[in-house]
Amino acid sequence: VAKTVGVIGGGQLARMMIVPAIELGFEIKVLAEAEASPAKLAATVGDYTDLETVRAFAKSVDVITFDHEHVPLHILETLVSEGVSVQPQPSALLYAQNKLAMRKKLAELDVPIPDWAEVKNAEDIDLFLAKHSGVAILKTAVGGYDGKGVRVIRSSADAEDWLSFGTPLLIEEKVDFARELAQLSARNPSGQWLAWPVVETIQKDGVCAEVHAPAANANFHEAARVAEIIAKGLGVTGVLAVELFETSDGRLLVNELAMRPHNSGHFSIEGSVTSQFEQHLRAVLDLPLGSTEGASAFAVMLNLLGPSTANTFSERFEAAWSLENNSHIHLYGKEYRAGRKMGHITALASESLEAARAQALATYNALLA
Amino acid sequence: VAKTVGVIGGGQLARMMIVPAIELGFEIKVLAEAEASPAKLAATVGDYTDLETVRAFAKSVDVITFDHEHVPLHILETLVSEGVSVQPQPSALLYAQNKLAMRKKLAELDVPIPDWAEVKNAEDIDLFLAKHSGVAILKTAVGGYDGKGVRVIRSSADAEDWLSFGTPLLIEEKVDFARELAQLSARNPSGQWLAWPVVETIQKDGVCAEVHAPAANANFHEAARVAEIIAKGLGVTGVLAVELFETSDGRLLVNELAMRPHNSGHFSIEGSVTSQFEQHLRAVLDLPLGSTEGASAFAVMLNLLGPSTANTFSERFEAAWSLENNSHIHLYGKEYRAGRKMGHITALASESLEAARAQALATYNALLA
Repeated sequence: VAKTVGVIGGGQLARMMIVPAIELGFEIKVLAEAEASPAKLAATVGDYTDLETVRAFAKSVDVITFDHEHVPLHILETLVSEGVSVQPQPSALLYAQNKLAMRKKLAELDVPIPDWAEVKNAEDIDLFLAKHSGVAILKTAVGGYDGKGVRVIRSSADAEDWLSFGTPLLIEEKVDFARELAQLSARNPSGQWLAWPVVETIQKDGVCAEVHAPAANANFHEAARVAEIIAKGLGVTGVLAVELFETSDGRLLVNELAMRPHNSGHFSIEGSVTSQFEQHLRAVLDLPLGSTEGASAFAVMLNLLGPSTANTFSERFEAAWSLENNSHIHLYGKEYRAGRKMGHITALASESLEAARAQALATYNALLA
Repeated sequence: VAKTVGVIGGGQLARMMIVPAIELGFEIKVLAEAEASPAKLAATVGDYTDLETVRAFAKSVDVITFDHEHVPLHILETLVSEGVSVQPQPSALLYAQNKLAMRKKLAELDVPIPDWAEVKNAEDIDLFLAKHSGVAILKTAVGGYDGKGVRVIRSSADAEDWLSFGTPLLIEEKVDFARELAQLSARNPSGQWLAWPVVETIQKDGVCAEVHAPAANANFHEAARVAEIIAKGLGVTGVLAVELFETSDGRLLVNELAMRPHNSGHFSIEGSVTSQFEQHLRAVLDLPLGSTEGASAFAVMLNLLGPSTANTFSERFEAAWSLENNSHIHLYGKEYRAGRKMGHITALASESLEAARAQALATYNALLA
């Protein structure tokens, strides 16, 4: 009988997992927050913070995995104690949920990371700032994403509100990076681990705008080495994204982790022999992983951020497709909101990143015109 | 707002249309025969021979298209008269439903076809057999597929049962073909028409077993020329598959037509820039068609026919994926039955058809072992 994958969270990552489930003949069920979720084709609506809801959902599937990192760990720990296969396990997911725990663990594993410290009071901040030329990054340990829960500070006064909330905080060196990279890989519970080539990510206002695959002139070996230590050291299963700073002297420092398919890996749908979404399903079901080689030599992905409710992109398909280039448009079926990730474009080219980017950009401009 | 495509029929073709609908952000609704259909993620159950059911379904979508050719024409004609967009239109679909009408129309268009005649009685058969060395192919005009409704005959006595049913029949020359080809193309209502390179199809017991894309040493120009005449002459919209006989002296004769994605085009999911399923959605929505160029130089597709209820294929994923080759497995989520199309494998290669076939075959053997 075909296995059933259960995904908690009904966003675009769950939506894109439905595709390999259809192709490979797996059953897929999604526990979504709302009726109109991007993953609605496979979704039932329920509250992922309610143990009884998640427990009932778990009974209908062979494995539980995630579209996001926000499921309370105590719920997942209860499921594991009841024999449910949760991938990644809560013992690994902890490090994606909590940046303090993540920094401690990566330091222990001797992975290159920015200088950092736990923040309990204003004094901790002042001390750290004094060591780092008066500027640093303050982060909430939990709950941040896409630039939220992250702040550049120059004095403890800049942190007054967060300190008064009593939310766990950490402070990090503001790395003077040359660019940002992301190392995508996957690991299954049996221990097989496989990496895609490291990619370059370009952020705008804290949100990923563009991905170049593979990254030009990158230290592929070092990026993969770091990801392997993390995947194995933290016991990650499924897809792991390691966001990296590349310094001007070529060092790689780990910025953030995500334990699920990731925006930096969307290029793999057309650009790789095995997409991150197929790989995630294979990994969480403890099946052999697929080749991460390129289906094309170069791929560039551009995110489609909601410009306004007046443009739903799909009304511009005619203009975009009249270009007759090698761009692939993906829309997530979301309600439009300015700045929201509504979809993405991936263009492939055999000759260069520039050739791929020119096509993606032409399609992007046609959709936004 | 995103357009909604309505598909009548819940088989594997509808299932595979769900994938580009998810990717491109189209809504998709399927009218399926049964709850457990391959397309169940998008399906409601209803009887496609009931006008009221089909009419209500049509009201919930922007265009009606098909997983199979069996919807009664009078129902579709009623919908068209009520302003529903039905693609392909019943005036074209007629030729996919009725082989007598098809042969008459193709003769009119001067398309190369086998010699044929309408059969009203035993005398028509005897006359035709006398002209063709005593052997011919007898076909029911409607309702045949995958070798059903087709019979080799050597005397009118072989046709006694069908003649007594009074079902419309035609008789065709038994073409001494060297091999069979299939020319896939697509056309939108605005008239844009685009062909994939012609492929070779290898049948076993009247069922497609294997597809080589592109066909080795084929007359690509002639195959495309014939398909273009048919697509335009019959007013086909959506994907059109033209099954062809290639004679030992290199002539191409049209065997059958299908006006929907077709088994001979499954290779295009990974093998082409635009898959036949995406192209079909684009075409029936009257949007510009996508490139039919190869994403890989060579692709070979093998059908997975149900060997027994003891092997559900998905239990052999471990063995198949341990091969680490460039094969892509597709399963349709069907109940197992011997000889039934349960899924397919497509393997890609840059060097040769043989290299692609060797990989597909290794995966096939691993799944059937």
